[in-house]
Amino acid sequence: MTSSATLDLSLELLRQPSVTPIDHTCQTIMADRLAKIGFNIEHMRFEDVDNLWARKGTESPVLCFAGHTDVVPTGSLDAWGSDPFQPEIRDGKLYGRGSADMKTALAAMVIASERFIAKHPNHQGSIAFLITSDEEGPSINGTVKVVEALEARNEKMTWCLVGEPSSTNQLGDIVKNGRRGSLNAKLTVKGKQGHVAYPHLAVNPIHTASKALAELCETVWDNGNEYFPATSFQISNINSGTGATNVVPGTMTTLFNFRYSTEVTADELKARTLEILDRHQVQYEIEWTLSGLPFLTPVGELVTAAQNAIRNVTGIETELSTSGGTSDGRFIAPTGAQVLELGVLNASIHQIDEHVNVADLEPLAEIYEQILEGLLA
Amino acid sequence: MTSSATLDLSLELLRQPSVTPIDHTCQTIMADRLAKIGFNIEHMRFEDVDNLWARKGTESPVLCFAGHTDVVPTGSLDAWGSDPFQPEIRDGKLYGRGSADMKTALAAMVIASERFIAKHPNHQGSIAFLITSDEEGPSINGTVKVVEALEARNEKMTWCLVGEPSSTNQLGDIVKNGRRGSLNAKLTVKGKQGHVAYPHLAVNPIHTASKALAELCETVWDNGNEYFPATSFQISNINSGTGATNVVPGTMTTLFNFRYSTEVTADELKARTLEILDRHQVQYEIEWTLSGLPFLTPVGELVTAAQNAIRNVTGIETELSTSGGTSDGRFIAPTGAQVLELGVLNASIHQIDEHVNVADLEPLAEIYEQILEGLLA
Repeated sequence: MTSSATLDLSLELLRQPSVTPIDHTCQTIMADRLAKIGFNIEHMRFEDVDNLWARKGTESPVLCFAGHTDVVPTGSLDAWGSDPFQPEIRDGKLYGRGSADMKTALAAMVIASERFIAKHPNHQGSIAFLITSDEEGPSINGTVKVVEALEARNEKMTWCLVGEPSSTNQLGDIVKNGRRGSLNAKLTVKGKQGHVAYPHLAVNPIHTASKALAELCETVWDNGNEYFPATSFQISNINSGTGATNVVPGTMTTLFNFRYSTEVTADELKARTLEILDRHQVQYEIEWTLSGLPFLTPVGELVTAAQNAIRNVTGIETELSTSGGTSDGRFIAPTGAQVLELGVLNASIHQIDEHVNVADLEPLAEIYEQILEGLLA
Repeated sequence: MTSSATLDLSLELLRQPSVTPIDHTCQTIMADRLAKIGFNIEHMRFEDVDNLWARKGTESPVLCFAGHTDVVPTGSLDAWGSDPFQPEIRDGKLYGRGSADMKTALAAMVIASERFIAKHPNHQGSIAFLITSDEEGPSINGTVKVVEALEARNEKMTWCLVGEPSSTNQLGDIVKNGRRGSLNAKLTVKGKQGHVAYPHLAVNPIHTASKALAELCETVWDNGNEYFPATSFQISNINSGTGATNVVPGTMTTLFNFRYSTEVTADELKARTLEILDRHQVQYEIEWTLSGLPFLTPVGELVTAAQNAIRNVTGIETELSTSGGTSDGRFIAPTGAQVLELGVLNASIHQIDEHVNVADLEPLAEIYEQILEGLLA
């Protein structure tokens, strides 16, 4: 039987059916371990969301481990090879909802802290944990609220290590040192309903918008930069028409999204979009929703410490990336903290039979511990 | 109390709730009158649709009156000023479902035939009636089947006068001497579903089709001709997306329609559409449905007889038009018959409180009779 401290704590966390926003005692399990090694524990509940802020030490600099105890729903239980909340090891893989995203990283963070503090009881600065149970959901009463509370009392993080599953083919092959911004829009194009046999009496919104949409689709918004791919524009939904084949519709709605680099701002993207719509004389209403500002942690202390730790433990040179979806790092970076995401392989996240390589658990704890060594020893 | 032969027969027909495909004895009422003046009567029922073919005489040329006894549904009865199947005259207007479309024209055709035959018992050629109860519905077991039966026995119409309400502001101001063709398409654009954050792993069908759709919208298909407006292209429906804002959809569907002149053919429109889609490298499937071939009756015997009759009865010069929706004329014209649509004002058709000017009924019967005079006396 495989056994290790990181695996054992992972199993304990994976047995809790903590589907967003339910924490199901995961944070208590972590807090109890952290309290024993000198952490000051603060449970911060906002509405229906449990959050944990734990800190050992009062001095700067502050290395904060950040993450979430909530998991996405299981989907059809019949489709799973084993109960998603009864973690099971088969062929060297640990199966369970949250095994990759991101309870094993939470366990590795706690174990790394225990080991580091045992070796360096009088380490420099502070170690902290910022844990939420609402990362997979609306993300309204989670990390963003804790950060607000910390900012309000002027409590700062210097470095923040987010345990999101960043690895692609091999543990540590990729770390995320930033994320693109995400800007959503709902565009309603207005026309005038009529009969297809009398088009001169109608204004077809599909037609009046067609050239503007084509131009939006092929516009180069920027060319990215050293850290970011080029900003992308994607229409996710387009709908118009009554179903009848002889009616010119009166309105058309589209939803679109920008994933954008630090080379443009949300305001610039909005202005350029409106210019295109106006130039093509489209009649419209538009609602914008900014889901996340872009952030970037250039090469510096945190990135270097992570590169060194990964090289020492796995022998590979990690790659910096800003691709992929949003994470709670978007809420922490604006405080001025250096933010880096580093965790296990992400191939199975949010899927049936989510799993992680058991052999990656102790190395991940060791990477986290060596980052502590590099920054706070 | 207003009274006239045309009004009396109109009232009798309007009291029958003959919503498609129910004829509700309308054709029997007409057939009984026609049999008395020498018509040979054939009831042709196809599936659930009653049709009437009545003919007086065996010689050519054949002037056929064509029309339908079925009416569209009433909509909310509460909204009507009077029972739609209890015709009522108020302020010189006859209200009832089918009053304009087209039971008063049917009555006028019968009355005109009675009067003409009384004056010319030994007229030239033949007079016929082609009446269906499925013009407002699927139009599968109506006029098209009667025409097939006639063609199968080589029975031809020379001229066909369809009683559709062609007038716009004044009785006889417009006659339809043709109709545009109608070609429908269902276009399914194929892409590859994915996450908006990873557009390089997805193929967005909205994007890949955007330039082709814009080009289709602005293409000039032809410039029409003396009788037809330019061919028009209208997208009636466009749909893509799961509703989620972070998913690149896998497919997009659009429905579009051509109303086309005699300057192009359906095959040419199909070929030009496919060329545009292919040139923009759109991946697609397309299903075509030809709902009606265009037809045209140039100025000739029938048009001239109608122009003369309208001028004699109303004092106005009628205008030839091919605009508007399809009619059963599309099934008759391909046999080689000259086809003309001439009836009452169409402003209230298919609406609540459908009505016709009572004062237009006898003049319409007189116009029909004068056309018989012009062609068969």
